[in-house]
Amino acid sequence: MSENTADLHPLDDATRLAPGPDGLLAGRTTPAYWNMASPFGGVTAGLLMRAVLDNPERIGTPVSQTVNYCAPIAQGDFTVAVRVVRSGRSVQHFYAEIAQNGTITTNATIICAVRSQTWRHQPATMPDAAPAESLPAMPAGAPVPFIGRYEFRFLEGEPRFGPPLAEPRSPHSLFWIADRPARTLDFVSLAAFCDIFFPRVFQVRGHPVPAGTVSMTSYFHASQAEIDAQGDRPLLARADALRFGDQFCDQFGELWSDAGTLLASTSQIGWFRQ
Amino acid sequence: MSENTADLHPLDDATRLAPGPDGLLAGRTTPAYWNMASPFGGVTAGLLMRAVLDNPERIGTPVSQTVNYCAPIAQGDFTVAVRVVRSGRSVQHFYAEIAQNGTITTNATIICAVRSQTWRHQPATMPDAAPAESLPAMPAGAPVPFIGRYEFRFLEGEPRFGPPLAEPRSPHSLFWIADRPARTLDFVSLAAFCDIFFPRVFQVRGHPVPAGTVSMTSYFHASQAEIDAQGDRPLLARADALRFGDQFCDQFGELWSDAGTLLASTSQIGWFRQ
Repeated sequence: MSENTADLHPLDDATRLAPGPDGLLAGRTTPAYWNMASPFGGVTAGLLMRAVLDNPERIGTPVSQTVNYCAPIAQGDFTVAVRVVRSGRSVQHFYAEIAQNGTITTNATIICAVRSQTWRHQPATMPDAAPAESLPAMPAGAPVPFIGRYEFRFLEGEPRFGPPLAEPRSPHSLFWIADRPARTLDFVSLAAFCDIFFPRVFQVRGHPVPAGTVSMTSYFHASQAEIDAQGDRPLLARADALRFGDQFCDQFGELWSDAGTLLASTSQIGWFRQ
Repeated sequence: MSENTADLHPLDDATRLAPGPDGLLAGRTTPAYWNMASPFGGVTAGLLMRAVLDNPERIGTPVSQTVNYCAPIAQGDFTVAVRVVRSGRSVQHFYAEIAQNGTITTNATIICAVRSQTWRHQPATMPDAAPAESLPAMPAGAPVPFIGRYEFRFLEGEPRFGPPLAEPRSPHSLFWIADRPARTLDFVSLAAFCDIFFPRVFQVRGHPVPAGTVSMTSYFHASQAEIDAQGDRPLLARADALRFGDQFCDQFGELWSDAGTLLASTSQIGWFRQ
């Protein structure tokens, strides 16, 4: 059962947008996806994706999204402005901004395309992984609400929130991920899953420090048919990182269908203190 | 010797911007960095980087850049508009657009930050590579002018422009790269180097097909001191890719100092035909 009055899935509730007479879309944060001081960055990416998917000028399906987290979104109302920057015959570029009380909290560029069949090749191989149903789900009851909206089943690199480790451990994690409650995959949830990796700075230090995503870029390799074929079954998620220092660190990730298709790849630069 | 009257390095000439009374910056394409139907995407990234570096409101050094190639830039004049989307205490978000004859050809988001020292860690390791000076430079005389502005010394995955291979080869390449003529590294050239990898679709098929970068995201890990330490010596460049199909493919890359420091990491989504 969904937890909100409209009987929507919580992700659909959190990404609900109402067109206004000023051409802006009106949205509102929900408690279900709250993080420390702002909504979960993934739900904000999903919301911006929905704003583009709903745009009457859109001609294709999502290929790429960059979301810049400029300032926290406070609990309450916000607006989303979307415009077409350039529309070619088959590739279309959107620019979007979320604003709240006169501050631009988030901006994004999103590219859609009318894709047609070509030569195809997937050099990346799906990591070996025991089936999701054979693994225990990470217990709910996490310190921030949005974690409870996802079901994590770790194969490698389970989060550790203890005292700092003496030596940094590997930034690599591998886990199955699903919406909780279950939800059929679409581009909104795929955009959100791209931010589901715990900050790699927590991962390597085994210890939480103040941290947040500054900019995330996701590439959508999946066709609509591949997304539809996945249904509501868990995706395999892999994350890693290259370098940490002077308050910033990168991370990159992959999201795989359980049939071995790379649905999306993503990277981000995050901020941390200490 | 530089090839232009102002005796600037060709990269400085190609990224020259003049502030206008309308608040826009005026630029002009140069033959030196011409690609098939537009300037080399890297020089456009470098130009947008310079537009932000020159912005009087800038408070930090570059952390992240996403450039979206919306339409070809024709030979001739263009304008660049840059605005601050959000400026926090230490992180600043810019949005920039290049326009030519009323068309937005390119847009970008660039993030700068005042960085201070924190815990640091580089889990990525520099690929093994024979020294640049021990390897032959790829002969000049390439089919497009911008290739002549770079000195490539391949260790793995040299480009092959023959008939299509029967079986796709690895998308991986490893090579030393330098400006030609030599130029001291800065954030402008580092932004440009992020696009220096031949399209991975050429790489795996061993054969050129119509292709271009659609969106590129680069993360700048380097401090100013690390950039200054590199001088004009070659960087080690590594590229790879995950999936090709339905007209689009990703690629990702790393740029290393010769001292083993990861200066930048980058990813892009490209378009191809056939």
